[in-house]
Amino acid sequence: MVGGGEGSFIGAIHRMAAALDGEIELVAGCFSSDPERGRRAGAQLGLAASRTYPHYETMLETEAGLAADQRMQFVAIVTPNHLHFPIAEAALRRGFHVLCDKPAALNLEETLALKQQVDSAGGLFGLTHTYAAYPLVRQARAMVTAGELGGVRRVTVSYPQGWLADAGDTCASPQAQWRTDPQKSGESGCFGDIGTHAHHLAEHITGVDITELCADLTTYVDGRVLDDDGAVLFRMANGARGTLTASQICAGEGNDLQISVYCDLGSLAWRQETPNALVLKRRGQPAQVLKAGVNCDYLHRDARAYCRTPAGHPEGYIEAFANIYRDFARAIKHGSTAIYPSFASIDEGVRGMLFVRAVLESSRNHSTWVRLGDLVT
Amino acid sequence: MVGGGEGSFIGAIHRMAAALDGEIELVAGCFSSDPERGRRAGAQLGLAASRTYPHYETMLETEAGLAADQRMQFVAIVTPNHLHFPIAEAALRRGFHVLCDKPAALNLEETLALKQQVDSAGGLFGLTHTYAAYPLVRQARAMVTAGELGGVRRVTVSYPQGWLADAGDTCASPQAQWRTDPQKSGESGCFGDIGTHAHHLAEHITGVDITELCADLTTYVDGRVLDDDGAVLFRMANGARGTLTASQICAGEGNDLQISVYCDLGSLAWRQETPNALVLKRRGQPAQVLKAGVNCDYLHRDARAYCRTPAGHPEGYIEAFANIYRDFARAIKHGSTAIYPSFASIDEGVRGMLFVRAVLESSRNHSTWVRLGDLVT
Amino acid sequence: MVGGGEGSFIGAIHRMAAALDGEIELVAGCFSSDPERGRRAGAQLGLAASRTYPHYETMLETEAGLAADQRMQFVAIVTPNHLHFPIAEAALRRGFHVLCDKPAALNLEETLALKQQVDSAGGLFGLTHTYAAYPLVRQARAMVTAGELGGVRRVTVSYPQGWLADAGDTCASPQAQWRTDPQKSGESGCFGDIGTHAHHLAEHITGVDITELCADLTTYVDGRVLDDDGAVLFRMANGARGTLTASQICAGEGNDLQISVYCDLGSLAWRQETPNALVLKRRGQPAQVLKAGVNCDYLHRDARAYCRTPAGHPEGYIEAFANIYRDFARAIKHGSTAIYPSFASIDEGVRGMLFVRAVLESSRNHSTWVRLGDLVT
Amino acid sequence: MVGGGEGSFIGAIHRMAAALDGEIELVAGCFSSDPERGRRAGAQLGLAASRTYPHYETMLETEAGLAADQRMQFVAIVTPNHLHFPIAEAALRRGFHVLCDKPAALNLEETLALKQQVDSAGGLFGLTHTYAAYPLVRQARAMVTAGELGGVRRVTVSYPQGWLADAGDTCASPQAQWRTDPQKSGESGCFGDIGTHAHHLAEHITGVDITELCADLTTYVDGRVLDDDGAVLFRMANGARGTLTASQICAGEGNDLQISVYCDLGSLAWRQETPNALVLKRRGQPAQVLKAGVNCDYLHRDARAYCRTPAGHPEGYIEAFANIYRDFARAIKHGSTAIYPSFASIDEGVRGMLFVRAVLESSRNHSTWVRLGDLVT
Repeated sequence: MVGGGEGSFIGAIHRMAAALDGEIELVAGCFSSDPERGRRAGAQLGLAASRTYPHYETMLETEAGLAADQRMQFVAIVTPNHLHFPIAEAALRRGFHVLCDKPAALNLEETLALKQQVDSAGGLFGLTHTYAAYPLVRQARAMVTAGELGGVRRVTVSYPQGWLADAGDTCASPQAQWRTDPQKSGESGCFGDIGTHAHHLAEHITGVDITELCADLTTYVDGRVLDDDGAVLFRMANGARGTLTASQICAGEGNDLQISVYCDLGSLAWRQETPNALVLKRRGQPAQVLKAGVNCDYLHRDARAYCRTPAGHPEGYIEAFANIYRDFARAIKHGSTAIYPSFASIDEGVRGMLFVRAVLESSRNHSTWVRLGDLVT
Repeated sequence: MVGGGEGSFIGAIHRMAAALDGEIELVAGCFSSDPERGRRAGAQLGLAASRTYPHYETMLETEAGLAADQRMQFVAIVTPNHLHFPIAEAALRRGFHVLCDKPAALNLEETLALKQQVDSAGGLFGLTHTYAAYPLVRQARAMVTAGELGGVRRVTVSYPQGWLADAGDTCASPQAQWRTDPQKSGESGCFGDIGTHAHHLAEHITGVDITELCADLTTYVDGRVLDDDGAVLFRMANGARGTLTASQICAGEGNDLQISVYCDLGSLAWRQETPNALVLKRRGQPAQVLKAGVNCDYLHRDARAYCRTPAGHPEGYIEAFANIYRDFARAIKHGSTAIYPSFASIDEGVRGMLFVRAVLESSRNHSTWVRLGDLVT
Repeated sequence: MVGGGEGSFIGAIHRMAAALDGEIELVAGCFSSDPERGRRAGAQLGLAASRTYPHYETMLETEAGLAADQRMQFVAIVTPNHLHFPIAEAALRRGFHVLCDKPAALNLEETLALKQQVDSAGGLFGLTHTYAAYPLVRQARAMVTAGELGGVRRVTVSYPQGWLADAGDTCASPQAQWRTDPQKSGESGCFGDIGTHAHHLAEHITGVDITELCADLTTYVDGRVLDDDGAVLFRMANGARGTLTASQICAGEGNDLQISVYCDLGSLAWRQETPNALVLKRRGQPAQVLKAGVNCDYLHRDARAYCRTPAGHPEGYIEAFANIYRDFARAIKHGSTAIYPSFASIDEGVRGMLFVRAVLESSRNHSTWVRLGDLVT
Repeated sequence: MVGGGEGSFIGAIHRMAAALDGEIELVAGCFSSDPERGRRAGAQLGLAASRTYPHYETMLETEAGLAADQRMQFVAIVTPNHLHFPIAEAALRRGFHVLCDKPAALNLEETLALKQQVDSAGGLFGLTHTYAAYPLVRQARAMVTAGELGGVRRVTVSYPQGWLADAGDTCASPQAQWRTDPQKSGESGCFGDIGTHAHHLAEHITGVDITELCADLTTYVDGRVLDDDGAVLFRMANGARGTLTASQICAGEGNDLQISVYCDLGSLAWRQETPNALVLKRRGQPAQVLKAGVNCDYLHRDARAYCRTPAGHPEGYIEAFANIYRDFARAIKHGSTAIYPSFASIDEGVRGMLFVRAVLESSRNHSTWVRLGDLVT
């Protein structure tokens, strides 16, 4: 693991997720850019001092030199965004598999470069778009892509958070500091951080690409450089339309990601804060509330495979993350990502950065329509 | 009453709403453009044959000739849109007050003409933007306009319906027929019908005008002329931003109008299908669920005045409509609309048609931003 | 109407309910035991002074003397409980139909006497067990009694209110005063007032009688004579079991009546505060949320007939009450109660008082089982 | 670990829970009474063959003989109920700490014997009443026991499940088989299995003992010996009253444990299937929805300590279990259970078995009141 030392939120989540199913062991780490803090973190985690490294390069080099059955098998990157690319690139170069927190890199260019590396290197690469790993998101995707509700007509996805609502919030945590810093976060703030989740969810559930969009970004809080709020109109490859809203200045909100997909024959609605319910409304019928559970025979096989408990025993965010880790471990074991769909590929990472670039470009140009396909030539 | 005969949905709602509080009596009507059907409707409603009129002009003329304590006091217009203007204009000219189903008229020009008539005539004019008459919408407005949550930052309003989802639906009811017919419905379908409700709610709760917008309308169902779906990005006079989605082709949906208003210090969310709950999230505090009820001392006076029952005894759509009728009757009685806020004014009617015009213009011009103020000179 | 003057909650509800559908007209009333207050109420309601009576006997006598097409057709009784019997008895004797707020009378003996009168008199008698008149309660009854979910196994019904939580509440309203006064309320407080609603709902939805019960009543608030809280275990004629809880001292609660009926093949759950949703869980299937609406083809005919609006336009407590009034008016018109099921019969009234008597007897005897059938011989 | 091999539901949950926080390592196990299956399970879990034992006695003996820094530190018992006592007793005797799935033992007598052993042995003993380990249950307990809502008046706890609804279900899983077998499950079926959870929750949240009860148990499904459904009226030490319903034959239900605690000044309601919301209704105020989250400053310290994520990132059943494991590990580390409240003590185990015994005795005696205190002398 690289990153995830003291004060990191996501590092601890990754570690719990990796540990949950007993298939993955944390064997080495470089937890902080400050070697002393990194050492402390390693010790707290019970790691041997010899495998708590002061720098990721040292870690990659040393581990690569260990015997095959001794060395770490993959690297989890949980650093701020600006380090995703150099670390991932180096790890892949050394022959390690890489599971990286999203976004894939600092910007579109880096992500395309990373894609080249992924395509040429032997290692697997995965991106943690966690929300796609919830069982009922998998169910939604299975239903919509199989056409069970007919074609997609409209998608409404909204992601309000409130943790950056005030100027004071900007310095309240290391998280907040680097996320609002273009050097570390990238060219977008809110849209790079959570807009990409909303975008991924929309394309992942429908199986249809967003082809063009028209965006209006804002920075509400004084002193901030990057966007902290915005909304997007979009059109999809099949003619569907949609809206995407993402905001980090909605005071009082937690993490209220929600999506509705309206199709020819009915709609699906899912809300991250109550993830074990998927509301299905078919035309002329009572609404149905699908639940997650190993015993829910009505779920698609792909959805049930991501449940650990029977219906009524709620699973949550850490389990969704754990689905990704388990899939990634199994993909490594089988040398293929083919049947392990809960983590995102580098191609999905590229799409995410295309989305961010298009949003920024449209917003800068009076919300003119921008075609995502025009951004890469 | 003009309109509201057999097959009319909204006519019966208006009548129940008018009757509910025992302050209004239906004394005359012209219920159909087909005199025979109109007569039948009048008889069913227990109206004297002499006061069931074959044409609205006859009604206005005859009633105007009656003694002051005999004649009807106001006209409720519940016809298709294209008749709103001529009937309202004629009624006002004859000295009657007018309560008209929304929208005010077929288009912006007619509405402006109607405004002139309203401004010069002695009679009162009211528009039934029903959703604004729910007690908890009044509460939301009271809180936001008083600044209890600080300034408005973002508004998300969404209005999905499914009753026009298929080509077959277009002819399934008289309702559907005239609503999809530009001659009777106006220049917009979905946005004239329900987009105007969403727009009204956004401005009404916040007390802030939408100043410019950028829209993307669609017609999903083959053979239709008017829009049946669309979405809008908007900006408000105070710098707030928002999205508005309206659709009548969301198969499986009923009448799921919902609005979230995110402010500096917290947010409010209201959903029409569960109208007796208003969710208030203040930063750093537990969410609160405000309820409607005459005994809810925590509600603003203006909100409680629109409740008839104690909390826990649900009121609904008809009661919201009845609030409008009761307010209109009382405004007539007191000769002033000043303290009767549950019905919309002709100015709000004009704003609604400005909104529709701007949406159409933007959508036709590749979703360029259109300033509402530029549409009237 | 008898009762329902100033300070009465339920009188106004009855009047709105009666007016809603335009089929009933308030023509005469005796609104208060204080003639002056009664006169004032009549004037406010726009009633002719000649038909605002100082005493119900005068009203019955005078109205009975009017021509058939002039006199009132039925009497609505909305007084405190102790007057139900004498007024109903007198009205039936004079040949009037009677629609009476529940409970039927002050106690079991009076109710049985009233039943004799009803059985021998020509007039119709109806009891307003309002909750049974909600469309989705009718749906639940239709489904369960048709055996769609197999046999009933368990019923859980709970009715917490908080309006009598404190000693101070006892005097806070005329309502609270007479409800806690055995002379006016009867031998039970909470169970006579709302326990009877819960009991009626349980038997009405299932179509199965409660045959025996075991109860534990309490009086939490100092200075009160009657029960203000309690719970019951019960057994039903088909072998099903259940619990019933009713309380008026649950501080913070409104009117949270809720019932779950668990059957061989699935369960139904309904909650009065969100009355337009009925949750159906069938074994091995996603939960379904049935909605009320004239356009909900999946509802039983008997349920749809009690809707006025399409799904998504919420109806509530007043509409449920109005269903009773409309049914009662139609029953009078057709001279039969056979197909008008939304109001309760005198037999259901007797069952309610049997229930109360059994609850009191059991509670007094260390919660021994009491068979309802043993209480009448 | 003892038990938890193939086909075990709860064994896998315990292992995930133990692994989640990275503070506990599975080092030895005896996973099945069939040595071959046990070996297979150990291998699948990556355990050394030398520490996968064919019998728990062998395990205890062998491990006890290992060096202190090598041997296992505590034993997790996840077998059917009849093995809890012998294994726990043996483990404690050998000086191991014991964390045992509930109930503590097969019956009251065994549990009292176990208590003697716990009291005399040096080891710690913990019982996994999982639901008490949810953060918002801890919050509820903190609020109620601190008297923030005044005294407790009424408790309604209900636990409907449907997995044993039919005769066919009895043999559908090893789980179902032993749970319906008195030799392995104990003298009660449903009440031993889930009634004890409901009982524990009621006493744990309120901090008040149930002193007497009156019960009505049933066996709905033919061929079953033990109860599969029942309900209880109870009284508490402070004069509060309540009802407890538990059932495993409610077809269509999952694991819908829910509790409402009504106090002098307001009520709290929690539902296990949506565990991250706690509804607080204070008299005269809007309902509040408290959420779980490390960042929810309004939560009691004891509640926040059991959160791993910020509000809006749902945690669930496995995390609740993990709270218990983490607390138990820390209690071992600090040699004291004093500040680790998420697991239950042997005294709580005794109370659970007292409850079951009282329920059975009351139900057998026509639901007479049974005082729990009279069962031990």
